[in-house]
Amino acid sequence: MRKLFLALLLISTQVFSQSEDEKQLKKIYTTSLTNGQSYEWLDHLSNQIGGRLSGSLNAERAVRYTKGQLDSLGLDRVWLQPVMVPKWVRGAPEFAYVETKPGVTTNVPICALGGSIATPDGGLKAEVIEVKGIEELEKLGREAIEGKIVFFNRPMQADLINTFEAYGGCVDQRYSGAREAGKYGAVGIIVRSMNLRLDDLPHTGAMSYGDLPVQHRVPAAAISTNGAELLSSLLTLNPDLQFYFRQTCKQFKDVQSYNVIGEIRGSEYPNEIMVVGGHLDSWDLGDGSHDDGAGCVQSMEVLRLLKETGYRPKRTIRVVLFMNEENGLRGGNEYAKVAKSKGENHVFALESDSGGFTPRGFSFDCSDENFAQVQKWKSLFEPYLIHYFKKGGSGADIGPLKNDGIVLAGLRPDSQRYFDYHHAENDTFDAINKRELELGAATMTALIYLFDKYGTIMPKKVKG
Amino acid sequence: MRKLFLALLLISTQVFSQSEDEKQLKKIYTTSLTNGQSYEWLDHLSNQIGGRLSGSLNAERAVRYTKGQLDSLGLDRVWLQPVMVPKWVRGAPEFAYVETKPGVTTNVPICALGGSIATPDGGLKAEVIEVKGIEELEKLGREAIEGKIVFFNRPMQADLINTFEAYGGCVDQRYSGAREAGKYGAVGIIVRSMNLRLDDLPHTGAMSYGDLPVQHRVPAAAISTNGAELLSSLLTLNPDLQFYFRQTCKQFKDVQSYNVIGEIRGSEYPNEIMVVGGHLDSWDLGDGSHDDGAGCVQSMEVLRLLKETGYRPKRTIRVVLFMNEENGLRGGNEYAKVAKSKGENHVFALESDSGGFTPRGFSFDCSDENFAQVQKWKSLFEPYLIHYFKKGGSGADIGPLKNDGIVLAGLRPDSQRYFDYHHAENDTFDAINKRELELGAATMTALIYLFDKYGTIMPKKVKG
Repeated sequence: MRKLFLALLLISTQVFSQSEDEKQLKKIYTTSLTNGQSYEWLDHLSNQIGGRLSGSLNAERAVRYTKGQLDSLGLDRVWLQPVMVPKWVRGAPEFAYVETKPGVTTNVPICALGGSIATPDGGLKAEVIEVKGIEELEKLGREAIEGKIVFFNRPMQADLINTFEAYGGCVDQRYSGAREAGKYGAVGIIVRSMNLRLDDLPHTGAMSYGDLPVQHRVPAAAISTNGAELLSSLLTLNPDLQFYFRQTCKQFKDVQSYNVIGEIRGSEYPNEIMVVGGHLDSWDLGDGSHDDGAGCVQSMEVLRLLKETGYRPKRTIRVVLFMNEENGLRGGNEYAKVAKSKGENHVFALESDSGGFTPRGFSFDCSDENFAQVQKWKSLFEPYLIHYFKKGGSGADIGPLKNDGIVLAGLRPDSQRYFDYHHAENDTFDAINKRELELGAATMTALIYLFDKYGTIMPKKVKG
Repeated sequence: MRKLFLALLLISTQVFSQSEDEKQLKKIYTTSLTNGQSYEWLDHLSNQIGGRLSGSLNAERAVRYTKGQLDSLGLDRVWLQPVMVPKWVRGAPEFAYVETKPGVTTNVPICALGGSIATPDGGLKAEVIEVKGIEELEKLGREAIEGKIVFFNRPMQADLINTFEAYGGCVDQRYSGAREAGKYGAVGIIVRSMNLRLDDLPHTGAMSYGDLPVQHRVPAAAISTNGAELLSSLLTLNPDLQFYFRQTCKQFKDVQSYNVIGEIRGSEYPNEIMVVGGHLDSWDLGDGSHDDGAGCVQSMEVLRLLKETGYRPKRTIRVVLFMNEENGLRGGNEYAKVAKSKGENHVFALESDSGGFTPRGFSFDCSDENFAQVQKWKSLFEPYLIHYFKKGGSGADIGPLKNDGIVLAGLRPDSQRYFDYHHAENDTFDAINKRELELGAATMTALIYLFDKYGTIMPKKVKG
């Protein structure tokens, strides 16, 4: 009889709890959609500050602005975490043309890749060799490449449903193209923009020379997808055409910057830390609304929504706006380093860095036990059309926190439009839909609420 | 032993079939995304033709263009189905201002509602009474309303996740506001635009005077959401302010138009007809790219994708581009009437009329047996992030086909941005994302393929 009673009690507690969770999620979504702050914050970040490249004045302004806003939320603690960041400056607008015959030229839109060196002052003109990927360089050999501009023109694969997968299949051209082509004596490289649309916007992004000796380093630029199509067609007609480009970008010494951090201290387990964040730096062409202003204001909104809905977290919830994701990951690395040196116990971290579009769910990098727990919450998310819960990947900035016990998660918004804007001058506030942004913030808050309430499952220690 | 063999055979057939379906869906999606036609068709419809209000020259052009395109697909039959449609013309651009003191005026953006009468030539100026819904009129009574402009200002409910639900909760103000206010002696009505954003665009849409005597019919216009907020604030400060508006719209006699129809004849059950469609007419402010150019080109693409992927349908697949959904539903009604008079057996109909955004799934209006069949196909759609399969609603144009046996379905794209564009001047081609449009076309094709292959489940006849 007693057993039955206990069983009934247990069932009724669970039912109550489920309905309590339903109510809390409803509160979170309603507050975000009817009384949200994220859109206004992003308006300021995008329209009053603008692009926030690491080491720039705007990045500094963004640090000050977001710190000020977190201060105003009545959190338990807000602070800046110092981190040295690279400072790369684009310089004068880049310029490029295709010369099919002496004096017959067509301008094409390009932009320097982040981290590239400049061309000579007067620009660089050379013949072009088109390839579809780095692996072609070896086959072509030095003879075919030396003295030429290598044109990397493998497009993003359109039939992949997840556009990040298509990006992953192409971005080696941008990141490593110059380093590899430099080894074969190329004088420069041009990369097709990582964009699934055909348009006139060049998309910048990080590249690296690795440990290539300085004398082998060549300037690298992205060309718009339309420009890439044109160049490729013209090359078919005239393989001997010349390509000219000029860019004046420059790498300066590292400068001081900051991760912006705020926290609500946990009421029961203050030493269990849950992080939610995005990256505060952006590229310089647009104003970084999707990448990653959206993720920053959504992360700030998580803490505001928890307070606004009257939820007192058991664990410490920390918002981290990471500096320098785009060209260095210094913020993410520094945060993890400090956490380790202080012996902090991070049990959960969530990043939003895939744009401010309609949220579809989350990807997880965690143990099977923790993932099984997430699966049980699926029905709670269903009314909000959140259905995607898959293992695989989280976010770049929180990656350095990885260990056996932590749950890492990434918000997964609809990805179809993301690369229309990614790292290009049209990544601006007008491409953000207020409701989509707010739904994302609410969805993140809901996940944090559930993980805070029910905790994460620690791995069993291996007997030794 | 024989039983075991049969069971194994059955299992292996099912496994084979599942994998055949997987392959066919993969083919459909890949073809749509890499070699699609829908975006190009929509480019023409939107940018070369433009807004296609029923009875307009553009609507005629759209009939001719789409018929021509269907002709070129090598279908078994393409034809025009005559239907008489209303012809309402907006006339000169509307004009409105708020006059807070004599001579102190602020312009506000308005547009006439479709079907409204004009104001007097010199415009109409009167005091304003603000209400949040039709039900307030009775409480206020004739005394408070007579001689005034009624301002319907109930906003769309922001905390509803499905924006169509929020629309459904407001649109009575637009459709019936003038009819109801006219009964209390109002001289005109102004309706807050059905838009979840705050912006400067008035959104038109259908209204009706019902059988209200002509002398009680008053002009009706929509005001932008920012305009509505402004007017409401000014009314708080000064309840006696005057509102002026002028519109010259006019209803003409019905004119001849057409549903555009094409079909692939079924190889096994040609008399079982499956319809896929959208509506070819649109409002006149934008070019009707989302509403419902997208649905038209997606429906055309369904037949093209079936052919392109080498699938020979067992049943007759018919694309119908309905005329006059927006202000009359004459096309939908006529199609159903003709189908009935010919004794045609429609087993399935799918409409796309919720914008060209990322598809999330379908809603169904069908028997439980048919819905249970759909549920079994869920896993086939999962790789394409299609997860929404719910009962409730399909599409306006296919509604008249409803009977006990038919499966009616509506494509359900992401709804967050839809009412930013709906019936407004920014419903234009640039608001369409090519991939999202193509994913919708593929998703529709996949559903049609499955229903064609496995058939619908007919209701058991009631013994009588």
